[in-house]
Amino acid sequence: MISQHRLLNLFNDTRAETENICSFLEIEDYVVQPVVDVSPPKWHLGHTTWFFEEFVLKKYQEDYKLYDPNSAYVFNSYYESVGDKVIRTDRGNLSRPTVAWVYNYRKYVTRELQDFFSNNPELSKEILEVIEIGCHHEKQHQELLYTDIKYILGNNPLLPVYNDIFEENPIEDTPPEWIKIPEGVYEIGHKNEDFSYDNELGVHKVYLKDFEISSTLVTNGEYLEFINAGGYSKVLLWHAEAWDWLNSNNITAPFYWHQIDWEWHQYTLQGLIKLSAEAPLSHISYYEAYAYAQWKGLRLPTEFEWEVASDKFNWGSRWEWTESAYSPYPGFKTAEGALGEYNGKFMVNQKVLRGSSVATSRDHARYTYRNFFHPHLRWQFTGLRLAK
Amino acid sequence: MISQHRLLNLFNDTRAETENICSFLEIEDYVVQPVVDVSPPKWHLGHTTWFFEEFVLKKYQEDYKLYDPNSAYVFNSYYESVGDKVIRTDRGNLSRPTVAWVYNYRKYVTRELQDFFSNNPELSKEILEVIEIGCHHEKQHQELLYTDIKYILGNNPLLPVYNDIFEENPIEDTPPEWIKIPEGVYEIGHKNEDFSYDNELGVHKVYLKDFEISSTLVTNGEYLEFINAGGYSKVLLWHAEAWDWLNSNNITAPFYWHQIDWEWHQYTLQGLIKLSAEAPLSHISYYEAYAYAQWKGLRLPTEFEWEVASDKFNWGSRWEWTESAYSPYPGFKTAEGALGEYNGKFMVNQKVLRGSSVATSRDHARYTYRNFFHPHLRWQFTGLRLAK
Amino acid sequence: MISQHRLLNLFNDTRAETENICSFLEIEDYVVQPVVDVSPPKWHLGHTTWFFEEFVLKKYQEDYKLYDPNSAYVFNSYYESVGDKVIRTDRGNLSRPTVAWVYNYRKYVTRELQDFFSNNPELSKEILEVIEIGCHHEKQHQELLYTDIKYILGNNPLLPVYNDIFEENPIEDTPPEWIKIPEGVYEIGHKNEDFSYDNELGVHKVYLKDFEISSTLVTNGEYLEFINAGGYSKVLLWHAEAWDWLNSNNITAPFYWHQIDWEWHQYTLQGLIKLSAEAPLSHISYYEAYAYAQWKGLRLPTEFEWEVASDKFNWGSRWEWTESAYSPYPGFKTAEGALGEYNGKFMVNQKVLRGSSVATSRDHARYTYRNFFHPHLRWQFTGLRLAK
Amino acid sequence: MISQHRLLNLFNDTRAETENICSFLEIEDYVVQPVVDVSPPKWHLGHTTWFFEEFVLKKYQEDYKLYDPNSAYVFNSYYESVGDKVIRTDRGNLSRPTVAWVYNYRKYVTRELQDFFSNNPELSKEILEVIEIGCHHEKQHQELLYTDIKYILGNNPLLPVYNDIFEENPIEDTPPEWIKIPEGVYEIGHKNEDFSYDNELGVHKVYLKDFEISSTLVTNGEYLEFINAGGYSKVLLWHAEAWDWLNSNNITAPFYWHQIDWEWHQYTLQGLIKLSAEAPLSHISYYEAYAYAQWKGLRLPTEFEWEVASDKFNWGSRWEWTESAYSPYPGFKTAEGALGEYNGKFMVNQKVLRGSSVATSRDHARYTYRNFFHPHLRWQFTGLRLAK
Repeated sequence: MISQHRLLNLFNDTRAETENICSFLEIEDYVVQPVVDVSPPKWHLGHTTWFFEEFVLKKYQEDYKLYDPNSAYVFNSYYESVGDKVIRTDRGNLSRPTVAWVYNYRKYVTRELQDFFSNNPELSKEILEVIEIGCHHEKQHQELLYTDIKYILGNNPLLPVYNDIFEENPIEDTPPEWIKIPEGVYEIGHKNEDFSYDNELGVHKVYLKDFEISSTLVTNGEYLEFINAGGYSKVLLWHAEAWDWLNSNNITAPFYWHQIDWEWHQYTLQGLIKLSAEAPLSHISYYEAYAYAQWKGLRLPTEFEWEVASDKFNWGSRWEWTESAYSPYPGFKTAEGALGEYNGKFMVNQKVLRGSSVATSRDHARYTYRNFFHPHLRWQFTGLRLAK
Repeated sequence: MISQHRLLNLFNDTRAETENICSFLEIEDYVVQPVVDVSPPKWHLGHTTWFFEEFVLKKYQEDYKLYDPNSAYVFNSYYESVGDKVIRTDRGNLSRPTVAWVYNYRKYVTRELQDFFSNNPELSKEILEVIEIGCHHEKQHQELLYTDIKYILGNNPLLPVYNDIFEENPIEDTPPEWIKIPEGVYEIGHKNEDFSYDNELGVHKVYLKDFEISSTLVTNGEYLEFINAGGYSKVLLWHAEAWDWLNSNNITAPFYWHQIDWEWHQYTLQGLIKLSAEAPLSHISYYEAYAYAQWKGLRLPTEFEWEVASDKFNWGSRWEWTESAYSPYPGFKTAEGALGEYNGKFMVNQKVLRGSSVATSRDHARYTYRNFFHPHLRWQFTGLRLAK
Repeated sequence: MISQHRLLNLFNDTRAETENICSFLEIEDYVVQPVVDVSPPKWHLGHTTWFFEEFVLKKYQEDYKLYDPNSAYVFNSYYESVGDKVIRTDRGNLSRPTVAWVYNYRKYVTRELQDFFSNNPELSKEILEVIEIGCHHEKQHQELLYTDIKYILGNNPLLPVYNDIFEENPIEDTPPEWIKIPEGVYEIGHKNEDFSYDNELGVHKVYLKDFEISSTLVTNGEYLEFINAGGYSKVLLWHAEAWDWLNSNNITAPFYWHQIDWEWHQYTLQGLIKLSAEAPLSHISYYEAYAYAQWKGLRLPTEFEWEVASDKFNWGSRWEWTESAYSPYPGFKTAEGALGEYNGKFMVNQKVLRGSSVATSRDHARYTYRNFFHPHLRWQFTGLRLAK
Repeated sequence: MISQHRLLNLFNDTRAETENICSFLEIEDYVVQPVVDVSPPKWHLGHTTWFFEEFVLKKYQEDYKLYDPNSAYVFNSYYESVGDKVIRTDRGNLSRPTVAWVYNYRKYVTRELQDFFSNNPELSKEILEVIEIGCHHEKQHQELLYTDIKYILGNNPLLPVYNDIFEENPIEDTPPEWIKIPEGVYEIGHKNEDFSYDNELGVHKVYLKDFEISSTLVTNGEYLEFINAGGYSKVLLWHAEAWDWLNSNNITAPFYWHQIDWEWHQYTLQGLIKLSAEAPLSHISYYEAYAYAQWKGLRLPTEFEWEVASDKFNWGSRWEWTESAYSPYPGFKTAEGALGEYNGKFMVNQKVLRGSSVATSRDHARYTYRNFFHPHLRWQFTGLRLAK
């Protein structure tokens, strides 16, 4: 369990980092929601704040005065069990509360929580745990801020630049090879005392056949071969529903790729650049990952294979699609109360991604982390590593 | 034809008034588009400016330098024949260009046009006409600014106030009576030399049976009787498609009406107020206007009846639904070129509204004006006057 | 008013003719509903029968025993005020009652009505009128049977033949010329004692400017010139909503036209044939009629112009789109009770068609008849005659 | 491998049984498709026949003459790689080919295949295998015939009876108890030489923690307690997407349940009956199975747990939802060619069901069988068995 002192530092750093990410935005960028999966930055700022107000201050600080009972509820997200909320598709329709209001709300709640720390030097384990969850919850939203900002700017016909320092295409210098893992019973799950989500808990054994996994991620250049070989029009490479998705949405390349005068470009947070053949492939759906693997006569790893082999290769620039559906580990129990809504209720029709990405907060990544998305989604920094 | 001197005044006043309307907004309010019929205020500001740049400066001013060739095109609206455009449903997804950019764009184009006036003291009739159209086009968007701002704020759960001076519910002091108009052949259409749109032109004769028309608009109080008598659930009062619309959208009262603790309220640009029984009914669809008339055993006037009788009563606080479908007058010809897209292409499946509303620019109203909307729309200040 | 004797003949002929139309069908053809506008032939057979049971026998014949209280209600159509009904889109999902059941139902109701005639030799005017409406109602459904059968067979990839005697493409031998009609006040509406619908009543005067109308319908050959001149891709020829319709549905030719090996063919009730350049154009929407007229620099007639000029030309092979929206004539009142739902409730967003078509029951056509459809619909035998 | 002699018997029995299932239908019942998941019985009859024509006769019988090259292609299903096909949602719009045509088609192909057997007494293993797949493919469609017929009749407002001998609610007499299975490594997958699908192959080991599984299926009576306890309105019991599904579709009970005068009834193939509390629950979605288990504080078994424990309990009246997503077994490879489309392409976003149901052809059931459906589907005979 984290100490109260370290938790306060974590809290302060996290709150500051969120605002740092947004410091490159214009006010208008905070407001829009071009598709339902993307939330307005303003909403992320408010929602991560609402979390501390709703689950910590309102519950544990005596005589806590809500910053604004009439407005804060618009930052509830999916917590069906906690009062009214603005439906998700409407987030981009709300011009009020303003961005200035949200920053004041943040300042107020941050200050109140800092005071709560000072005034209660020995907070209970229960309270520390909720605050720790709140910090990691906000770190998750930091990643979403990057990807949602990329969507908001990258789908604007003017393709504006976010800033010129965010590097999203680190080139790997690992030599490509097949890492062999022998057959056997392995332990899976989060084992130490550090923070983890409930969906990683329940250490348990799995039996794995021997397998091989690539030391490197698939690159843009490798994926271009697939495109040039007509991969997007070979029906037998694709899942049935992938084929429908492809055709209804006219998908012929990864997200954010633009072909201009016969040359491939890519929109990045630094603006439009020429596609780098060496950079790791990004912004692909599970469907595309699977079809590419089929075309190579290979496959995606399961999440268990990934976890077992993960100390044998470098990871961290792309969320890596696995073949595993997102399901509960043996013994998983939904927590009591509203925080119990956190993970269990998404355990259907999603695929597990392992690793982390260039947008992940550094101390938020760990090799047991189970991320999950619907198989058609592409706005995250998603890539793939092959297995056989 | 308007003189160049008066036109310059008209131009200056119009440009200033548009900005005055927006002076009560927060930056965030300029950006959102909660439904497709509503455009972001930022877009209105840019679009009315683009009109002058596209149809005047670019065409008639030598060596005109576009303010920004990469950005301005996002303010094209429906002019299919003038290059690329951002599709209408996407207007609310664009955070860039920013509001500040748009105000600079306005300033630049306004200044360029003023210079164009000074440098060319004897502009041709053709040019004067296009500029005059541009001014009236901007006045139309002034009205849309009011109604779109009302939608943006009035559909926010916080129901914020626009300002506290815009009076949208003027009480009529006219005594209610039936005005009789005798049978006969009447002349219809715009007759003098003042500005009008092409859809009002083509003075022509119509034969009218004798009819009677009310001296007053239907009030909120009168409409409440219809609601309380179960008007919204009596199928025989409604058009077939109105009945479907009613049921799919759960319509049980005019737009912006809220029943709070059994008492009726109305959102106005001054905020939420108690419903005034004496105020003229507003924000109803044609379907509701028709059903109310059916319930009273009366009917709506045609646009011809309205025009012929219009000097016998006061009008101007509500756009008044008529029974007339929006069709070309005899001899109507679509103008050549892009401006020809203006009116003709909407002449199907819309109903004519006559008069003007509290949101109409004062010198933009005239008794021959033909406004038109789809029958289900309610976000304009629409009301009704009965006939028999 | 029709005599009881003639009405019995009309009734007998009508009932027989409906079954004659269906005699060319397989049982399977009676059941399907490929789009919502098309009803299964089984439904037409049942619905026209239900009309007589519901509005005549149940109401006026003492001790009438319903054929089957549990089944007959599935043949209610749009009469919202008469009990439960199967929603329209579900008609093609019902395999029961069977076709055999429906024919027995018809036989039963026909027999009962014939007995009702014999047992009551002096039926009241009110009853005679309802029965007369029932016969004309059934004649309308005879036309729909032809057009719905054409849709059912013509959208089957096997393009089966209905029969080889139904001639839908009579060639006109009228010389093309412009018929001139002078300016003046004209009388409009149904004037004699013969049957008409309520929407034709209310003889009234209209003032018409002088105009010219073509003696002939537009032919396939003439329309092909429009296609070959790129008419479907010239945005300025089309209404705004027509343009959307065109693009969302990939419309590039009239309905039932097939281009096979670069040669135009047309599906007809006699099967697939080569397109005849001389035959009158058919199966076009109002949008296409309008765009064609725009392209020619001409226009469609109003329904009043059509009616006034109609004794100067031949008509009867195509329903002719007019520019007129479907609105009530002066003095139109919705009838009391369920039959009052008949016409008034469709008087919004539809266009009037005048004349009649090759599918219209011969004694059902008259020059004052006001047919109406939504402007995008094409499955009727619709054509156009130009005016200027 | 099955012998040629036994395969011929299997073929003959299978073909006859399919027609036996349809012998209770009216012609009209063969044609309709009330929802996309349900296919018209006519289509099943044709499609299972087309399979033998396409994959056996056309490929292996010299000079084989297609029954009808113009029509048979409408019975291709999802084999994207084998020529044109009628899109799935259109199957219910096709009145032709007729039912009589389809029966003749069946007769022809059955006869040809029987001749093929006689003329080639020593067919190759490859050919025998394809024919065997064809028989099991047809048995799968036999089950779909039952469930699709139930849908077609059970969603008709007349609720007609299919026949009075099909018993779909066998009461279990097993005493309810928890069966304990110890922790360990188990072998999974199809082991013997009998027929199986490719998705069951690849015998492999899994590590299971000790668990308990119920000896009985959940009954209607037990599920009613969940309903009466407000289970359908307790958000925390449901997956997030289940909650959306519930609310958009107004789901408040299993499919085919009808509350009439406060008493629960169930539509069965024998018609509407009172709900039996002892009968095994049927026609529930995975979502409902999961929510029920959550409410009991229990869970669904994984497919591996189910397979390991399956010889300890009776199964066979309901397809049993498991917690497992449908994924490839280790070493699974998509077969070459069109038959390779069979299973792999559905391995995303579906849940595995184990066991078999009252509608499953008896010799088609085995304990390694992996059935799969989307989690919201309910028209199959689906039930649940709890684990902990």
